[in-house]
Amino acid sequence: MAPMLTGTEVAKHDSKDSCWVIVHGKAYDVTEFMPEHPGGMKIILKYAGRDATDEFDPIHPPDTLDKYLDKSKHLGPVDMSTVAQESKEAASPEESERQERIRNMPLLSQCYNLMDFEAVARRVMKKTAWGYYSSAADDEITMRENKAAFQRVWFRPRILVDVEKVDFSTTMLGARCDIPFYVTATALGKLGHAEGEVVLTRAARRHGVVQMIPTLASCSFDEIVDAAEAPQVQWLQLYVNKDRRITQRIVEHAERRGCRGLFITVDAPQLGRREKDMRSKFDEQGSSVQSGDATDNSQGAARAISSFIDPGLSWKDIPWFQSITKMPIILKGVQRVEDVVKAIEMGVQGVVLSNHGGRQLDFARSAIEVLAETMPVLRELGLENRVEIFIDGGVRRATDIIKALCLGAKGVGIGRPFLYAMSAYGQAGVEKAMQLLKDEMEMNMRLIGAQTVADLNPSLVDVKSLLSHGNGVPADNLARSVYDPLANPPQRQSKL
Amino acid sequence: MAPMLTGTEVAKHDSKDSCWVIVHGKAYDVTEFMPEHPGGMKIILKYAGRDATDEFDPIHPPDTLDKYLDKSKHLGPVDMSTVAQESKEAASPEESERQERIRNMPLLSQCYNLMDFEAVARRVMKKTAWGYYSSAADDEITMRENKAAFQRVWFRPRILVDVEKVDFSTTMLGARCDIPFYVTATALGKLGHAEGEVVLTRAARRHGVVQMIPTLASCSFDEIVDAAEAPQVQWLQLYVNKDRRITQRIVEHAERRGCRGLFITVDAPQLGRREKDMRSKFDEQGSSVQSGDATDNSQGAARAISSFIDPGLSWKDIPWFQSITKMPIILKGVQRVEDVVKAIEMGVQGVVLSNHGGRQLDFARSAIEVLAETMPVLRELGLENRVEIFIDGGVRRATDIIKALCLGAKGVGIGRPFLYAMSAYGQAGVEKAMQLLKDEMEMNMRLIGAQTVADLNPSLVDVKSLLSHGNGVPADNLARSVYDPLANPPQRQSKL
Amino acid sequence: MAPMLTGTEVAKHDSKDSCWVIVHGKAYDVTEFMPEHPGGMKIILKYAGRDATDEFDPIHPPDTLDKYLDKSKHLGPVDMSTVAQESKEAASPEESERQERIRNMPLLSQCYNLMDFEAVARRVMKKTAWGYYSSAADDEITMRENKAAFQRVWFRPRILVDVEKVDFSTTMLGARCDIPFYVTATALGKLGHAEGEVVLTRAARRHGVVQMIPTLASCSFDEIVDAAEAPQVQWLQLYVNKDRRITQRIVEHAERRGCRGLFITVDAPQLGRREKDMRSKFDEQGSSVQSGDATDNSQGAARAISSFIDPGLSWKDIPWFQSITKMPIILKGVQRVEDVVKAIEMGVQGVVLSNHGGRQLDFARSAIEVLAETMPVLRELGLENRVEIFIDGGVRRATDIIKALCLGAKGVGIGRPFLYAMSAYGQAGVEKAMQLLKDEMEMNMRLIGAQTVADLNPSLVDVKSLLSHGNGVPADNLARSVYDPLANPPQRQSKL
Amino acid sequence: MAPMLTGTEVAKHDSKDSCWVIVHGKAYDVTEFMPEHPGGMKIILKYAGRDATDEFDPIHPPDTLDKYLDKSKHLGPVDMSTVAQESKEAASPEESERQERIRNMPLLSQCYNLMDFEAVARRVMKKTAWGYYSSAADDEITMRENKAAFQRVWFRPRILVDVEKVDFSTTMLGARCDIPFYVTATALGKLGHAEGEVVLTRAARRHGVVQMIPTLASCSFDEIVDAAEAPQVQWLQLYVNKDRRITQRIVEHAERRGCRGLFITVDAPQLGRREKDMRSKFDEQGSSVQSGDATDNSQGAARAISSFIDPGLSWKDIPWFQSITKMPIILKGVQRVEDVVKAIEMGVQGVVLSNHGGRQLDFARSAIEVLAETMPVLRELGLENRVEIFIDGGVRRATDIIKALCLGAKGVGIGRPFLYAMSAYGQAGVEKAMQLLKDEMEMNMRLIGAQTVADLNPSLVDVKSLLSHGNGVPADNLARSVYDPLANPPQRQSKL
Repeated sequence: MAPMLTGTEVAKHDSKDSCWVIVHGKAYDVTEFMPEHPGGMKIILKYAGRDATDEFDPIHPPDTLDKYLDKSKHLGPVDMSTVAQESKEAASPEESERQERIRNMPLLSQCYNLMDFEAVARRVMKKTAWGYYSSAADDEITMRENKAAFQRVWFRPRILVDVEKVDFSTTMLGARCDIPFYVTATALGKLGHAEGEVVLTRAARRHGVVQMIPTLASCSFDEIVDAAEAPQVQWLQLYVNKDRRITQRIVEHAERRGCRGLFITVDAPQLGRREKDMRSKFDEQGSSVQSGDATDNSQGAARAISSFIDPGLSWKDIPWFQSITKMPIILKGVQRVEDVVKAIEMGVQGVVLSNHGGRQLDFARSAIEVLAETMPVLRELGLENRVEIFIDGGVRRATDIIKALCLGAKGVGIGRPFLYAMSAYGQAGVEKAMQLLKDEMEMNMRLIGAQTVADLNPSLVDVKSLLSHGNGVPADNLARSVYDPLANPPQRQSKL
Repeated sequence: MAPMLTGTEVAKHDSKDSCWVIVHGKAYDVTEFMPEHPGGMKIILKYAGRDATDEFDPIHPPDTLDKYLDKSKHLGPVDMSTVAQESKEAASPEESERQERIRNMPLLSQCYNLMDFEAVARRVMKKTAWGYYSSAADDEITMRENKAAFQRVWFRPRILVDVEKVDFSTTMLGARCDIPFYVTATALGKLGHAEGEVVLTRAARRHGVVQMIPTLASCSFDEIVDAAEAPQVQWLQLYVNKDRRITQRIVEHAERRGCRGLFITVDAPQLGRREKDMRSKFDEQGSSVQSGDATDNSQGAARAISSFIDPGLSWKDIPWFQSITKMPIILKGVQRVEDVVKAIEMGVQGVVLSNHGGRQLDFARSAIEVLAETMPVLRELGLENRVEIFIDGGVRRATDIIKALCLGAKGVGIGRPFLYAMSAYGQAGVEKAMQLLKDEMEMNMRLIGAQTVADLNPSLVDVKSLLSHGNGVPADNLARSVYDPLANPPQRQSKL
Repeated sequence: MAPMLTGTEVAKHDSKDSCWVIVHGKAYDVTEFMPEHPGGMKIILKYAGRDATDEFDPIHPPDTLDKYLDKSKHLGPVDMSTVAQESKEAASPEESERQERIRNMPLLSQCYNLMDFEAVARRVMKKTAWGYYSSAADDEITMRENKAAFQRVWFRPRILVDVEKVDFSTTMLGARCDIPFYVTATALGKLGHAEGEVVLTRAARRHGVVQMIPTLASCSFDEIVDAAEAPQVQWLQLYVNKDRRITQRIVEHAERRGCRGLFITVDAPQLGRREKDMRSKFDEQGSSVQSGDATDNSQGAARAISSFIDPGLSWKDIPWFQSITKMPIILKGVQRVEDVVKAIEMGVQGVVLSNHGGRQLDFARSAIEVLAETMPVLRELGLENRVEIFIDGGVRRATDIIKALCLGAKGVGIGRPFLYAMSAYGQAGVEKAMQLLKDEMEMNMRLIGAQTVADLNPSLVDVKSLLSHGNGVPADNLARSVYDPLANPPQRQSKL
Repeated sequence: MAPMLTGTEVAKHDSKDSCWVIVHGKAYDVTEFMPEHPGGMKIILKYAGRDATDEFDPIHPPDTLDKYLDKSKHLGPVDMSTVAQESKEAASPEESERQERIRNMPLLSQCYNLMDFEAVARRVMKKTAWGYYSSAADDEITMRENKAAFQRVWFRPRILVDVEKVDFSTTMLGARCDIPFYVTATALGKLGHAEGEVVLTRAARRHGVVQMIPTLASCSFDEIVDAAEAPQVQWLQLYVNKDRRITQRIVEHAERRGCRGLFITVDAPQLGRREKDMRSKFDEQGSSVQSGDATDNSQGAARAISSFIDPGLSWKDIPWFQSITKMPIILKGVQRVEDVVKAIEMGVQGVVLSNHGGRQLDFARSAIEVLAETMPVLRELGLENRVEIFIDGGVRRATDIIKALCLGAKGVGIGRPFLYAMSAYGQAGVEKAMQLLKDEMEMNMRLIGAQTVADLNPSLVDVKSLLSHGNGVPADNLARSVYDPLANPPQRQSKL
């Protein structure tokens, strides 16, 4: 057995010409690989000759180096005691403030709804991680519309229904669920929590909800499957690789490991450009004023991790998927009724109406609006029972879930809220978030007068304003500035 | 006669194993009762061995202990001089600021409308009491919509009508009313005023308006009835107890005591979860960080006081009510026209279109909107004269009352505004609030061109926008931040 | 000739039992009159035995005492040198700040639009005067809607029309006007300017526009007529007195003096309650905390000056007016198409669609909306040429005037803006305001492609949204507070 | 050769009676010309006897003096060493702050979208230049509506389309364009950048986009043409001069120089009044309080430079234009479908739906709305292929371009954003802005499922709300002020 490498040896390879990096105590020669690195050369060179573990971890599943770097470049273990300790820079003022915020963060018991987790996460997460999770496409209009659209749906509750016992369990793709939501796929879980997506797996297990495993997880697929326990159900979310052999391998592996649904992402031929994410990563020092605007280093994490996705994926590929798996196939990211009908004709088992959390095309409509457009057409065509329809985006309250089910959805996906709960409070946070939804669900099923999800139907909602997208006449600033608003009675002046 | 108990004796019973408390100078053994306490054990244990009167009073009618605690547990009077005086903690800074605000509160004569009382109450009430009164379900959207909806109804006034004499008196369920509103049922009046609901009774008497007596009053039912004077009319609001014998006793007692209407609450099979209320009660000290999130102690007052309500109440129960009372029966909390029609078919005398002040199901529609949906259908079916229709929620101006009557309501219920007026200024405040409504009513009857309430009809209002629930395109923040708004001419610089 | 009274003598009569006051150097015995004073006794008693001129002037036309106080109570001139000079109280801090604002007020040439005058007036007027002019009914919704409604009307301009010469002169009730607006009637001009309404008369003369003379002017009717010069046209606005002989005297006098139109106010059987006005007058010192809420002294100026108005005025009175005058009769304050039709059937010459500047019934619709409702019905009935239709309320831009004319109005009334211009800059201000409207008018006639007012027609405007009165879903505060808005690039940190 | 003039000699001619000015080292006698100066006499007199170059440059193309001042008034070169150096006034505090902002302005690489350039330009431009570029008519409602209207158009994207290769090149008036926008005509480029419009020319060349050359450029027409390189395409924007011979000369010259389209401006018979522009120029010192309000010196740049425009231009002139040029003729500023149809009947080759960037008639509708009104009518009449339709106003995102093309536009004009990019970062800024649009375009073509611009069609957009112009019920200030909004959990108090 060869002697271990020393930090001094590795440190010599600190340039484009010869670039070694240390990850988890092992050295790798990435000189040749660098130009192909989806995240760009620059970030690798920053760590040339040094330990890159902290930067590496959130972005890469642990099996990444095995999968993508030829074995010959694996240089073996390093004697970490010889690696020059990076004198940890004194925390920046921003980081000190963040640590202070973490020390004083609210107790978990003070979180009463899903927005509360987001509020806490915003305070305690690193700016770049927050930027990645919270950002969306262009002006982030669609992201916010996703939530706002639910608020244009109002209830028409029934009264005097015996709701002593309410049961909001259901099935999705044949699997029992305690409540009609699932944990949808979201990328880079380790940005929020050191353990990554397995935290979500464990919480989902506790609450009897399905988890959709993301292609772009920080944990490896197998880690996430291993974290589950029967009868827990998992589905696979798939970005289709340009190399269909890789795709096939992934699908077949997932089926073997017991995944019970294949969700093919169809709304992301290219991953979105998210300006908040870009801005959160902008590093003034790293930008050379002299060198102009050449590099793309500020494009954010989304681009870096997604270069393999095939923008050529089309309807013609669907039969091939049907030929390689027996898992139900669901198209994730359908955005208009015409394509729902087409999906049914192609024989898929389900669709997710979704705009990818507003992260792809700004001004894509909300899923709940597309659902309201879709179901009457399907009923007209007699197709309403031919697929299961899911929606995701903007779900934060049990009332949102109820609205979706009234309008014909089988279930809803929830993503970011669980990431925020996890980032702020770990597994306990995710479980609390799920429990809050169950509490709200029980209450609101009673209040709307429904004993089971089968009782949820379109007559219970008023959607007259759902399709409305006005934005009003621009503000009349002069009139506003001269208007003297009415005020409540002032306090009296204390006598001194 | 046994010697009086001493404080020292009582103080020994300060644990789960033996728990005595003092209320109004008498000791009670609550050891066995504690686990069944609707408000949880924790709050009782806090006062174990001590005087709990201050905490007890607002939440419990005075006859509570007689009703719910076996006589054997009534330990008799305590010599209060022997009870260790709680060294009143120095007032917290928050409390000192509140007392300062009370000292400088506006004169009653500075209140010109019902919102003004709310503004003053917000300043001078204890945070927890304000939290209980002002909170509503989930995001409190429905609570605010209740008021906002009235503002989507506009007037089409008639001119050149002789309005020298206007008369806005009316009848409801056969009783004369000076003005078409009644004091609707609201819980826990002693949170706002030491005397509780009887304050409202006295003010109602002065102004010739009906009062609906709440099940969850701080005063006992009989206290409230005793505070009335003929020909004052009172109605009974009823939460139906799981134990129908208790319900029957309450109804029969009310009828005997002269109540002239039975308002069965049908929109609250379970009382709402109100986050502002919960947050106002959160006590950092009381939460053990170590013990996690186990207790439900922060659920607020609503849950504590309502566990007896029967979520199994259904249409099937209505004939039974009709069999036990001759009072007119009115369903309170109807929320869609289908159920109004059903109520008529069941032979009830009235319905209150209501969403419980927004405290139950968020995104329930406003009563005024449901009214606009309901009346054309009833007219179509020839049922418009078969019931009296009331509405409540969001009424703050006489114009709101007029709008409701134009659209077909017989009268409107007003709740919170009187609680706020009472909390800020006691009975004088409530009377002033009622007087303001009368002043506005006289003025606005004239201005709309109506001599009597019989003249109020649908042609006087424009409801084209009432059903509209848009919320607009999410804000275009970048565009807003770059726009340089027009400004009025600046002041010139003084020459120094 | 009797010796002049001395200040000392007058000062003795300083109580309810004997109350003398000095106005413009003459003494009056108002002991008996006091109880009938429309503004209440209290205000008179404040000046008992003293000089009341400053308080008296803005509220009362100079002929008031002659008209309403019996000659026997006119005590004759006072030797003013013997009247104790009120040691003018040191100016209050508020007044000092106002004087400072006056010193630094913008130059007239810095006012570019009508809102600018309002902005300056708000800074330099006394709070009570501002309160009277700027206030409106209840929540002042209608007042602001009046302006907002114009902004829901959009243009469909014609291009390639020869607009070298544009001519926006017109006629109203047969009188030539340089531009299609008139100065509408507004009360209490001396609150804004020491000379009162004659300032408006002179400016109107300079610009060739009609003035409507208000019943409630600070100047006497004759003063205002005297300030005019041929061929200047004036109309009379009339509040109808309960005593029809007084009314008849006023009308006949006006006709004799050359008034060319009689505008009978029909939207004010009682003058509005305006809370901002009331609050501006509230005087903490003057309110006795002990004495409770007895007096009505804070009701503002509107009530004080309007108790003579007849709320019994009705359609039946119209023929009588037609019998006593040959002036064209116009109903001012019509608010729905049914009443326009009725007015035509009654044979009047015109109507003013108006809600009294939002000062009467809140939630009355804007005149421009009522106009859009009215004209299609009149055209359908073939009545569109049977009356001249005017509108007022919210007009601030020439585009507003153009919109009204496109929709069928003959002209528009403008009130408050001229009061503000007068209050800030006197006659020069009013003239500048009128000139700005002419400048805008010329420009915008060109830009819309109209050579004369005859070219203005409905095809030039888009009114699809005019009738819309949504107010949106109440704010989603939690979602707003957690959203992290996009921001523009920050400045770089300076190197120190 | 005559001896050069000296500064002393020129300085003698410093009055209305004899007024010489120096521009670019040469003296001119402008005594007789002054009264005709479109910008007024005052500004010339300010520089009488002195060097006026700095003030002259941005407003006048370099050939102005040759064109408009008789040769006899060209006095020849001045020995600039003899001209008294204006002791540059110490920079004002405002200017010092601006210079500080310039020093710390963001790097170009921090600009991620077109709004970012506007944000930077607002910080670093001179107030008067910013005022000229950013201002619009009246309340600037239309200017902002232009952008807002796009946000009422939502997408209905297609999925599973092979978008590996997307091609968004197109043709306009026969010319190839890399992307479907052109640089539209904007005035006074030197206010933003010392080199003026040629900066835009060079950037347009780099990105393969067409430039429309403005009549009111700071550079001369020939300078702008000279800055172009084949195969770069340029069009001519034309304000039609009252003197048609001048117009003809301009058109023929442009055609000779290779311009490929003649865009006749039809929405500006008179240039707009822009209050922000006027206010930015207001100079307190320059206004004589004594002299009243006589001069028009604060009317801003727009009026000064546009007095030659013919307000008599009409449809009758179109055949004449067709007779003097073979360039395609496009009417710029069409604002309703009736005029589009008329334009087609007149045989022009195109129209630009435009409201002149909101700078002319406030409440003109947005071009995208007029487009949505126009195309269905043209299709109905079978005219949709008879003209090329362009739109401008408010375009900031590639999604805006896509929306316009889906609705039937051939291309869109973009103006201000490039001025802002130029003002902040020069040519590099303009190029970056164009590159950002290309990046967004590629992404969004993929995301909407379109391979080429031919795939963009009305089914891809939802325009149901485009025509909606509500502005809501005025704010309910009292209710707002009493509402206690929900809040997220607070931070815990640090233990000290």
